[in-house]
Formats: sequence, C-alpha cells, structure tokens
Amino acid sequence: MQVLKKGTINTPLGFKTNALNCGIKKSRPDLALIYSIVRAQCAGVFTKNKVKAAPVILGINNLKDNHAQAIIINSGNANCCTGKRGADDALLVSKLLSKELKLPAIDVLMSSTGVIGKYLSKEKIIKALPELVKGLGFNKADKTAQAIMTTDTFSKQVAVEIKIKNKPVTIAAVAKGAGMICPNMATMLCFITTDAFVKQSALKKALKIAVDESFNCISIDGEMSTNDSVIIMANGLAANAQVLENSREFKEFGQALKFVCLELAKMIVKDAEGAKKFVEINVLGAKSKKEASVAAKAIANSILVKTMIAGNNPNWGRIPAALGAADVDFKEQKLVLTLQKKVVFKNGLPVLKDRYGLIKSLKKKDIDITVNLNNGKFKHTVYSSDLTVEYVKVNMAYN
Amino acid sequence: MQVLKKGTINTPLGFKTNALNCGIKKSRPDLALIYSIVRAQCAGVFTKNKVKAAPVILGINNLKDNHAQAIIINSGNANCCTGKRGADDALLVSKLLSKELKLPAIDVLMSSTGVIGKYLSKEKIIKALPELVKGLGFNKADKTAQAIMTTDTFSKQVAVEIKIKNKPVTIAAVAKGAGMICPNMATMLCFITTDAFVKQSALKKALKIAVDESFNCISIDGEMSTNDSVIIMANGLAANAQVLENSREFKEFGQALKFVCLELAKMIVKDAEGAKKFVEINVLGAKSKKEASVAAKAIANSILVKTMIAGNNPNWGRIPAALGAADVDFKEQKLVLTLQKKVVFKNGLPVLKDRYGLIKSLKKKDIDITVNLNNGKFKHTVYSSDLTVEYVKVNMAYN
Repeated sequence: MQVLKKGTINTPLGFKTNALNCGIKKSRPDLALIYSIVRAQCAGVFTKNKVKAAPVILGINNLKDNHAQAIIINSGNANCCTGKRGADDALLVSKLLSKELKLPAIDVLMSSTGVIGKYLSKEKIIKALPELVKGLGFNKADKTAQAIMTTDTFSKQVAVEIKIKNKPVTIAAVAKGAGMICPNMATMLCFITTDAFVKQSALKKALKIAVDESFNCISIDGEMSTNDSVIIMANGLAANAQVLENSREFKEFGQALKFVCLELAKMIVKDAEGAKKFVEINVLGAKSKKEASVAAKAIANSILVKTMIAGNNPNWGRIPAALGAADVDFKEQKLVLTLQKKVVFKNGLPVLKDRYGLIKSLKKKDIDITVNLNNGKFKHTVYSSDLTVEYVKVNMAYN
Repeated sequence: MQVLKKGTINTPLGFKTNALNCGIKKSRPDLALIYSIVRAQCAGVFTKNKVKAAPVILGINNLKDNHAQAIIINSGNANCCTGKRGADDALLVSKLLSKELKLPAIDVLMSSTGVIGKYLSKEKIIKALPELVKGLGFNKADKTAQAIMTTDTFSKQVAVEIKIKNKPVTIAAVAKGAGMICPNMATMLCFITTDAFVKQSALKKALKIAVDESFNCISIDGEMSTNDSVIIMANGLAANAQVLENSREFKEFGQALKFVCLELAKMIVKDAEGAKKFVEINVLGAKSKKEASVAAKAIANSILVKTMIAGNNPNWGRIPAALGAADVDFKEQKLVLTLQKKVVFKNGLPVLKDRYGLIKSLKKKDIDITVNLNNGKFKHTVYSSDLTVEYVKVNMAYN
C-alpha cells in the first residue's frame, strides 16, 4: 500500500467534485458536490443517535438499492429536529439536483452539518445547483474539503493506492470533525471515493470493519452527533478483478480502507475543538472486547482526566477513579496504570518515583495512557484529546 | 418542620465538634472531629466506585455493628489508591483517636477528601489528636464545616427541627462538594447529626431514601468519587418515642432528613467548581424510573449542553442530541422540549417564535430544562451546573 502524497478524493478514476458559497455562511464555501461519472456501488454507516437528521434518513432510504452517483453536502445547518419540513427540504434538494445531473433521484445522497433545530435555507441551495453542477471538475477536491468544515481548523483528506492482482486501485476520503464527537457505528461526515470494483457485500463488510476500528475508536467530548455519516462510493473504473468477501484481495482492500479511515479519525482528534494534545488510551487485559472499549471510553470522556492532561497535571488518581465508576470488571490490586510509559500505580500502590520526570513528559503533545486490567485477554485503543479553556469558549458560542 | 436559622451540626443535643490545622494544608483547617457524648446509632451510604478509599473501607467495616461515636475527617488527601499502607494509616489514626476518646476502636469512623494516590501524612494527624479532642465543644460547627472543604467556596450546613409525638427533635448536616460529583448511591462527604431516637432499620431505610432523592439527583461533571460518604449519627438524646419503620413518625423523620440532604445537595451544585448557573432538569413521561434518571443525567452530563448554558446560547438542539445518544426509549415526534418554560421543540418541529426572549431568559442564574418523552408515566429531576472556563482552569491545576 502506498500513501499518495498529494492524493485527494479526485484521485480515484472518475470522481468529479465542486464546491461554492451558496449563502448559508457569509463567505466560506458551504456547499459541496461529489460525483462519479458512472453509477457507483455505495455503502453507508450512519449515526445510532435516536434523533437523526433529515438527510441521514434520506440517505438510509436512498441507499436501499446499494447504489449512488452523487452526494451533495452543506455546512452551516444540520437540518435536524426539523420534522416533515426538514425531510421535504432534503428530498426537494436531492430531486432537483438529480434533474440537473440527469440521474434517478434515488442515486443522489445528501449530508448536512451545522446547527440543529433550524430550517434549511433551501432556496439558497436550489439557486446554486446549476452552478454547482456546471463547475464539476477533476481537481476541486481541496475546495470540497473546505466546504464541509464547521469549526475544523484544517481540511482532512487522505488517499492511498494498492494493487489488486497487479491493477492499481485508489481509495481516498475526506472528513470533517471538530466537536460533538463520540461516534457509535459512525462518525462525523466522511466521504470515501474509490475506483475499485468490489462486490456489494464485500464493500459493506469492509466499510463496517474500517469504521469500527477507526472512527468508532475516537472520542473528543463523549457526544454522539445526529448527523454522523460515512459513505463510500466504489465506481469500479479501475477495472480490477472483482473484490470478493473472504479473499486475499478483500483483506488488502479492507486494510487500505481502514488505514484511510484511521488517518482521518486521528486528524479529527488532532483538530478537536480547542485541543492541544493527542491522547492515546490503551486498555489491556479486559474480560471482553466490550469492557475494553467501555473502559477506554470512560477514561477518554472523563472531564477530570481531560483537564488533567490540559494542565500537564500529574494527578493520575483521576484515571482509576474514572475506571472504577465505569461498568467494567477489575480489581484495584491487579490494575497496572502507565502514564507516558511510566508505571504510576501497581499492586494497589502508587509506585512513581520520578514525579518531576512525569510532569516534564506530560508537557509533550502526545499523551499515552495504558491501563492493564489483568482480568482477561481483550484490548482496545481509543484516541482522544484534552479539554481546554478554548473548547469551552468555542462551545459557549452559537455555532 | 421548622428550618433553624442558625442551626449547625452542634444543634442536636449531645454533639460536640472541633477543627484545626494539622499541617496537611498550609494554614486552613484540615482536620475535623464530630463526637456524640453518648454512643449513637449510625448508618452510612458509601461510593459505588470500584476504587474505594481506605477510610471508606474502614467505615464500612466499623459500621457492621451499626454504631459509632466519633468521626474524624481530613481534607487535602483522599487516602485512595494507597494500598495496605493507606489502610494501615486509616486504622492507626482511628485506633489512636479511640484511645484519646476512651472509646472502642470500632466506634470511630474516618473520612478523607483531597488528592488521590498520595500517602497520608499520618504523623501530622496523630500529633494533632490530643489537641483535637481537648478542644471539643458545642459551638465549633462552623470551623468544622470549613475544615472539610477542598475547592468549595462556601461551607454547607443546614438544621431542622421536627416534633415527634410532641417532643422536639433536631436533624442537622454538614457537607462538602465542589468537583468529581455524580454520585451513585452516595455523594461527597456529608455528616448528619440528630438527637432522634430511631430504630436502626428505620434509620438505614430513611437514609437510603433521603440520599437517593437528594445527592443521587445531582451531577456536576459526571464523575463518581472514590471517597463519597454520607454518615448519620442518631444519639437518641431527644428522648422521643422511638421512630419505627412504616409509622407516621417515620414518614415525618424521613421527610425532614430528605429536606436536609436536598438542601445540601443543591448547595453543592450552586458551589460547583467554576459554575455560574443552577440547572434543574426535569424528565417526564419516561417508560421507567431508570430511563427517566438516565435521560436526565445524559442531559446534565453533556458537555455541549453545559457549555451552551454557560454561554447563554440558544442552541437547544444539543439537548435532543444528548437525549438521542442515551439508552432511553422515545420517539422524536413525541418529544416536547421546554427551555426556561418556553416550548422550543414539539411534534418533531422547532416551534420557538421569540428567540430574543429565550436568549434573554437564558441569562438568568437559574435554568430550567423540562423534557417530556411522552412514553410513560415516570419522571425524575436532576440538579446540575454549567461548564465554564473556570471549571477547566480549576481542574487543570493539581488539587
């Protein structure tokens, strides 16, 4: 697998994109279009939040035939908690876009991100559709990446190339993150383009595994969004031998897809609202996979652990306190807690000698918390961020 | 029931207290003693955190005989994650104090609050014991209330008088709060003194109910402490007819006890680290009592809801988003969301007309969030606070 240095979602064969400002936001791009020149196989993973945005519900419906050719994305408004009017708005936009693109309406998907509980300025979007379609091109991915941003401070794209039976195949993706991030079975917005020729069942399975092992392993603030969506379009233009489930090629394709998702997931954590640190939390020795995950997220989402990290503060007792409050089976005496690779708690005792060394190493940008529960063989890793004064300031504001 | 204006934990008959600085902290009082002149019936509710501090484990053991006569409390160190040495330290302090007071060791309880993972400065405490005992008096409750504070900004005491078959009986309590507050079956430190004569089983039952309906209904940061303890001593000196379970007197005693606990619980929320707002979250129409509680805590602990409140920010969509991510059964279409008594979301639609009025009312110190799930007949109320820049600053520091 080769990471493509300047790879974008335009890199896979046959994917055009465009983005522009339609007036939802003042001047930044706020409307984007991703389009495959041929109908693509498509799979999606969406938020498990019981409150789902209108475009998410539309997407789930339109994906029942497992195909799509275009995805329109707006930022600045989530079109969520907007009832029938919100659903009608999303449907109307997708239908008008399908006419403009001369596609069946079911082959158009929509994603929205931004404020919840406000009606969509659909007139602004509808007015911009002809220009959006007319301007589609093979080198506009960067603008597209910018158009889906909300409080993100940098755009997030990655592309890789693999060989499937000697045929080059590329996989690329773009994502937005920043806040309301503790995905469950999905995350934020992420759009993946690939020219691979993949069997539908294999595509779905590979996407589910990749999302589980990437976006579902990050948490910024323990909040699951109403709009989380990861959508992959595979248009088959690489003309490779079809990737079937449980084959060697499936494994290679899956690994590349997971790599792409994990790279973006880590970028999302690094660009978390107000965050200054990147925290890797490893839980080992759990009784089950689920308990390993619950334990890691309990640490990741603890406000007191997050502020401790923000303050380069050696008050590691907050970590066992967070663990002990979680629904995880362990004995205090068997717990081994490592902070920045230094053992701080073992055999029920504080064992750190070099407190000054710990404080010094906590000043680094990358923080490692490793907990061995010594209660089984399962492990899990979560990527997280610190909680800073800036996070609070960003979220005190209306956005 | 009468609230006693200047009531303290010295108000019930026969309770002496004292407090002093023993050197754990620089100059503030850090060691306190609550003492009944006669052996008292005693009940306690302790943290459900799997990581329990040494004094909590000692307290559970010493309460097996349902009696106590003295409680020693230190602040500045939680004596938690300190293994056998921590357990030995707590035991030694309690034994030496029992000698000083000429009591059986089992009648002495200990509570500690402060940093986790540091050994107790037991020599400092032991050295101070004679002076602590010698200075016991009937009018030192205020100093005692100060000595148990950590980041609290004001001390918390309340006392009430009730009549049991015409005999006056008083119940008083002192508590500390401030951070790491999302109790489960217990909370922070709270010590209750009463001169009531109560049957042991009735005392235990009344305490459990009172704690469930007060301290277990507050959440500041979703963090369950390792040292949470609520302890009541009932010395019977009011010489009232014994309060038996399921009697009219039990009901009256229980209501008064709940009142005392709820007053302190609200004070703890009002004094939450960095908090500027007092938030009451009412969940109505839940399928079960448990779901009502899960829903209310999901809103209370949502960082995005908390920062929204800190910012007088009308972004109410964060409330259904937090609800939808919780393990609670409801339909978005049936949800009715009221913010500051104004309906903002109903029938799946944003319905607020007077946005300016909402923003204005969000500037008040008291915030009301009421959610009707319209899915059953159960309800629950949680008291909570906002999340401010100051909370983050306080917890970035080592304390």
